[in-house]
Amino acid sequence: MRLVIVGGIAAGMSAAMSARRQDPSLEIVVLERGPVASYGACGLPYWIEGQVRYWRELIARSPEQFAKERIDLRTGVEVAAISHPRREMRLGSGETLRYDKLVIATGARAREIPGSGAPHVFHLVTLGDAIRLKERLSASQPGRAIDVGGGYIGLEAAEALRANGWTVEIVVRGANLLHRGDEALTAAIVKHLERCRVAVKLNHAVEDASALQAGLVLAATGLRPNVELAAADGIELGRTGAIAVTGHMETNLHGVYAAGDCAEHHHIVTGRPAWIPLGTTANKMGRIAGANAAGARGRFPGVAGTAIVRICGLAAGVTGLSAARARAEGFQPVSARIEARDRPRYFHGRMTTVELVADRESGRLLGASILGEEGAAGRINTVAAALAARMTAEDFQHLDLAYAPPYASTWDPLLIAARQLVKSLR
Amino acid sequence: MRLVIVGGIAAGMSAAMSARRQDPSLEIVVLERGPVASYGACGLPYWIEGQVRYWRELIARSPEQFAKERIDLRTGVEVAAISHPRREMRLGSGETLRYDKLVIATGARAREIPGSGAPHVFHLVTLGDAIRLKERLSASQPGRAIDVGGGYIGLEAAEALRANGWTVEIVVRGANLLHRGDEALTAAIVKHLERCRVAVKLNHAVEDASALQAGLVLAATGLRPNVELAAADGIELGRTGAIAVTGHMETNLHGVYAAGDCAEHHHIVTGRPAWIPLGTTANKMGRIAGANAAGARGRFPGVAGTAIVRICGLAAGVTGLSAARARAEGFQPVSARIEARDRPRYFHGRMTTVELVADRESGRLLGASILGEEGAAGRINTVAAALAARMTAEDFQHLDLAYAPPYASTWDPLLIAARQLVKSLR
Repeated sequence: MRLVIVGGIAAGMSAAMSARRQDPSLEIVVLERGPVASYGACGLPYWIEGQVRYWRELIARSPEQFAKERIDLRTGVEVAAISHPRREMRLGSGETLRYDKLVIATGARAREIPGSGAPHVFHLVTLGDAIRLKERLSASQPGRAIDVGGGYIGLEAAEALRANGWTVEIVVRGANLLHRGDEALTAAIVKHLERCRVAVKLNHAVEDASALQAGLVLAATGLRPNVELAAADGIELGRTGAIAVTGHMETNLHGVYAAGDCAEHHHIVTGRPAWIPLGTTANKMGRIAGANAAGARGRFPGVAGTAIVRICGLAAGVTGLSAARARAEGFQPVSARIEARDRPRYFHGRMTTVELVADRESGRLLGASILGEEGAAGRINTVAAALAARMTAEDFQHLDLAYAPPYASTWDPLLIAARQLVKSLR
Repeated sequence: MRLVIVGGIAAGMSAAMSARRQDPSLEIVVLERGPVASYGACGLPYWIEGQVRYWRELIARSPEQFAKERIDLRTGVEVAAISHPRREMRLGSGETLRYDKLVIATGARAREIPGSGAPHVFHLVTLGDAIRLKERLSASQPGRAIDVGGGYIGLEAAEALRANGWTVEIVVRGANLLHRGDEALTAAIVKHLERCRVAVKLNHAVEDASALQAGLVLAATGLRPNVELAAADGIELGRTGAIAVTGHMETNLHGVYAAGDCAEHHHIVTGRPAWIPLGTTANKMGRIAGANAAGARGRFPGVAGTAIVRICGLAAGVTGLSAARARAEGFQPVSARIEARDRPRYFHGRMTTVELVADRESGRLLGASILGEEGAAGRINTVAAALAARMTAEDFQHLDLAYAPPYASTWDPLLIAARQLVKSLR
């Protein structure tokens, strides 16, 4: 019985490890197109920044560790085509490889913009992208960089480039940062970026990246799922353009699973398929796909869209839906946005901003955003747990949250926001 | 219509403020026995430590702010007796005061141990206690201190005394710290305390505090609810010894409410009355008691027993039940205890210890403890939200928690613990 996993970064290697745990006798082959497997792509901006010294530190598990688990990891191997009726695939080398079960974990790639190929235009999605960018930064004096895109990678790249001494301007096509459709959050982040001497230009479409007047252009205009290989074999895509999977991570083809940035997932707030490519989700999906391909029957309940990003020392955390997205999804959103200290004033508490969104009719919490220096991750996670439980704002306001002066204020900012939200819902 | 509130610290002043918001025309009188109202008692150890410079910084709202809200705050006023049939009380001065509605927020006091009255024996519950201790610390050279008690105050006091240059030994009557009946947690905290050069002696009953050979004895042997005034008027106490209240914070006497450290509350995990005196709970209960006394009908769903304490730089957070407590409450606890990094290794992640407890039959989460440097508050709060939602370990393991290298690891320690717990439950 042979399991082949196409893709060896986050989802692929998680799938391999969990398949091994599920079935010690399974033959497991992982085919990774790039030269390096199992690296933490989310750490790349911090290697560029200099916080991480060697990119090898980003490798979660070494080839030796996989070999010890009898996982046949082959890097530098491209899959040319899959023929599921025959349970085999053709590799770039011309060789064919048979499989019994298949996990597709082909990830995502940078969305190209015109001029992407120019020598001074860079991406920051793969290790290869990062190495190329790092070489460029080492080779020349800092100058002026234009960072196209206001998503997570764009914001992290801005900080990384600033840390390298570059002057950075972020240029965003749309009106908002972080794909939330959240004007207040965008305004607060823009203000903070400007305090850190990063300029932001919103509502500005870049026609041709190569024509931008800058020493360096970072194109972080989003991702596209790598689905061509799967689609050519008759694997169905969902409405998001990523591979459609069941809760068991199975595609429309029996025995073929998909996981990670190439696949869709269920959104626990909207109840609809979504495509929010993030490392933590990729690992979770991969783990379930691998175990199921090896005979288990695990289910991935889906994502809340929880994410956090550091922006010049400030944490921006989100989960669920912003009010604008909630409206677009057919809810009647009511939101409360408050500023409060994350600790008592006498314990050097700093202001943190919390927005909570709930549905008017049901009172159910739909989402949150948090901007703050400390405790933002924990606070957004507390809301993420409440979203998974379909908790109402009314119940949320009574949560028994931890309090001690070094860590929190008597009324946690989350509870202050919830109280305000409950008032607005009445 | 006159509302009288007996007690003007956390619950009392929260009650006064929420009563005012509920009914702008209500006459509100607050009687506080001590000289200062509305101070944050949880901040006292940090004033002793020197982190807070002036105790006045601990005052949440000044007498002027209460006056502005037309709250008649009278400090230094003792209530001698309440006669509810006549809706009046006799003050220490002999004066009588009529009321229509009453909120009892008389708080708690240090549990006395033999020898408590000796000049070198101190408590750390009230502002008066803290002022006396601070004077003692200023007046003499640091020496050897014995800190009797392993609860929150005892642990915080140890750190505060160390910061003043004293050699500290903690002496605990029972086998465990933090009232959790959790041996592993106790062992980890003891180890950490010893690294910080604080000795700990467990299972050691102090017969007479005044006989201890030390320059200073801090008696932090727990609290007792101040219920004598209420009980003498026929207000019923619960099985915990604190005042029994409904979810609306009403006592057995119609129109008489109780809130804060003098009153019981519902425990959301056990479903039984509990008495866990903490500042955050006092504020929540006070807020509801005050609003209800002024005509609202709010309900306090109860506590999970969430708390956090800083111990020489390490955070210890708890919520719900330890395995031992769960067994005592009739559950069949299964627990998983893991150590994992709070951030990726390449981002200087430090080890954090998480224990999750669930019920074997239902799979429902029952509690957690966390020891760690960063993110402990947020993690314990995430579990607290799950407890309020009666979430199972199975559902908890799939939570969509925030991940970015500066804040968390791809698999948050909470999720690693949950996965382990799910395995143990099978």
